[in-house]
Amino acid sequence: MCTIAVRPNGAVVYGRPCRWFWTVSTMTQHFDFSPAALAELAQADVARALAEDVGQGDLSAALVDPALRAQARVVARESAVVCGQAWAQAAILALDPQAHITWHVGDGGHCTPDQTVFEVQGRAQALLTAERTALNFLQLLSAVATKTATYVAAVAGTRAAIVDTRKTLPGLRLAQKYAVRCGGGTNHRIGLFDAVLIKENHIAAAGGIAPVLAQAAPVAAHAEFVEIEVETLDQLREALACGARMVLLDNMPLPTLHEAVRINAASPTPAILEISGGVTLSGLRALAETGVDRISIGTLTKDIQAIDYSMRFAPQP
Amino acid sequence: MCTIAVRPNGAVVYGRPCRWFWTVSTMTQHFDFSPAALAELAQADVARALAEDVGQGDLSAALVDPALRAQARVVARESAVVCGQAWAQAAILALDPQAHITWHVGDGGHCTPDQTVFEVQGRAQALLTAERTALNFLQLLSAVATKTATYVAAVAGTRAAIVDTRKTLPGLRLAQKYAVRCGGGTNHRIGLFDAVLIKENHIAAAGGIAPVLAQAAPVAAHAEFVEIEVETLDQLREALACGARMVLLDNMPLPTLHEAVRINAASPTPAILEISGGVTLSGLRALAETGVDRISIGTLTKDIQAIDYSMRFAPQP
Repeated sequence: MCTIAVRPNGAVVYGRPCRWFWTVSTMTQHFDFSPAALAELAQADVARALAEDVGQGDLSAALVDPALRAQARVVARESAVVCGQAWAQAAILALDPQAHITWHVGDGGHCTPDQTVFEVQGRAQALLTAERTALNFLQLLSAVATKTATYVAAVAGTRAAIVDTRKTLPGLRLAQKYAVRCGGGTNHRIGLFDAVLIKENHIAAAGGIAPVLAQAAPVAAHAEFVEIEVETLDQLREALACGARMVLLDNMPLPTLHEAVRINAASPTPAILEISGGVTLSGLRALAETGVDRISIGTLTKDIQAIDYSMRFAPQP
Repeated sequence: MCTIAVRPNGAVVYGRPCRWFWTVSTMTQHFDFSPAALAELAQADVARALAEDVGQGDLSAALVDPALRAQARVVARESAVVCGQAWAQAAILALDPQAHITWHVGDGGHCTPDQTVFEVQGRAQALLTAERTALNFLQLLSAVATKTATYVAAVAGTRAAIVDTRKTLPGLRLAQKYAVRCGGGTNHRIGLFDAVLIKENHIAAAGGIAPVLAQAAPVAAHAEFVEIEVETLDQLREALACGARMVLLDNMPLPTLHEAVRINAASPTPAILEISGGVTLSGLRALAETGVDRISIGTLTKDIQAIDYSMRFAPQP
């Protein structure tokens, strides 16, 4: 079940001093991208997108006979990893529930220039109205999947997973997290509710690494993971000595990262090591070859180079 | 009043054969980005973003004493045109309604690397929880404003306005349209409901340029504008002869565009001319110098190079 889906009416925001037991007891940890969960998410995302695009009605589509039927195909104009099937489908079916859609390249599949990704038959008005919303999702989510796949390919053969961040497009978090998976990437925490990431400010507020990890211990059983960010090798040693299971190495130069991996490997209880900050595609391979477990990369979801798709209508008979 | 704001619960989608009189009679044409309208829009956008990020609670911020207060500043790490003031503010105030925010560079202002864009004082927990949502809006909307400003600068001194499209990030249409304005750009139609854009498929379905313009005539009084897309100079001549007031020249090579401007100028009723399709920054100036009125550019809103901001907390006393 899609327990964390962002619902159009779901503005449940923590707006009072956050209490430990309250937070933990009501937390949901699990998100799955099952077909049913994806369909539910896509329908909510698409409802918002259609509301803002169509509003009270499509003035231009009204020029077309409501009874007219059409067939169209969506063509990729460049190579890409496709993502957005549930969203494109939801956009079209919202306008014509009887539309018939045939997919040729599904989520995670590779398309080449001029390849038909899907074909659709339905009411001409509905296809004209749904076109831009369907393509906007497809071009965005395919962009995320395609970029992720490029980064994943760059670390092939190493142990490093390519991981996303919370630097996402507001309102599109889950869709983008799904796209990262379609590109072969790994999801970091979905939000602030499903895992703990202890940063500099949390450490400072709690009075140091040992006390903050002690404070975080009760949450561990309820969170997907508890991770602590360190900026120096001394902090890493302290975190490992305190039993940290997952450590984020923030913005360290390459020689320091190599040393961090050695320190971790020599620990009786080595942690999962993650690199973050200032990661570029050209420098990625060298980072992965340090032997870290994860590299998290903001650009996967915050910088978008939309994939070019177009919907082509078959000539009118 | 913000009559077209995308409301979290507003999934009003045209899902039946669209009827002329129905569409026109219920249409709202006007959108204003007044402070009140912006605040309403930002609150709705932010509520969705916080819902997906915070969910049932921020596990990490819970490590911080709820009574602890903090001050922080948001710093730009690169030059940019700032946009996102209402959204950043809404994110922080949703978590701490008593937070005090002082802006140093507002929407449409230019910031330089390491410049403080705003300062904030409030509950430490609230600032930690709001941080990513505030920055996600700021980095996205500033990216759109900054890119728009680059395109606007490239056509300085010509008559061409830089215009956005409907190739936007789903759910963020109005925010992005506002960012385009902050960068000095001009909004095209907001959606399918406020103007008519007659494309190839509409022309084909109606049986030609003359009949489709005749069909569109009754809408003109209710729409912001009626624009028709043409692909050849013959189509342009026909559209002008039929009294078209606004013409989109689709993907024409430069010599053809020069000829189109001459044909239009020689018409007894010249139209507003817009260029669309395959516009690059390097080729933009030459397009503007043809003498067209508008150049619409999808990349303004579909391709994002996030502006780098960080929130820096003052040292704990």
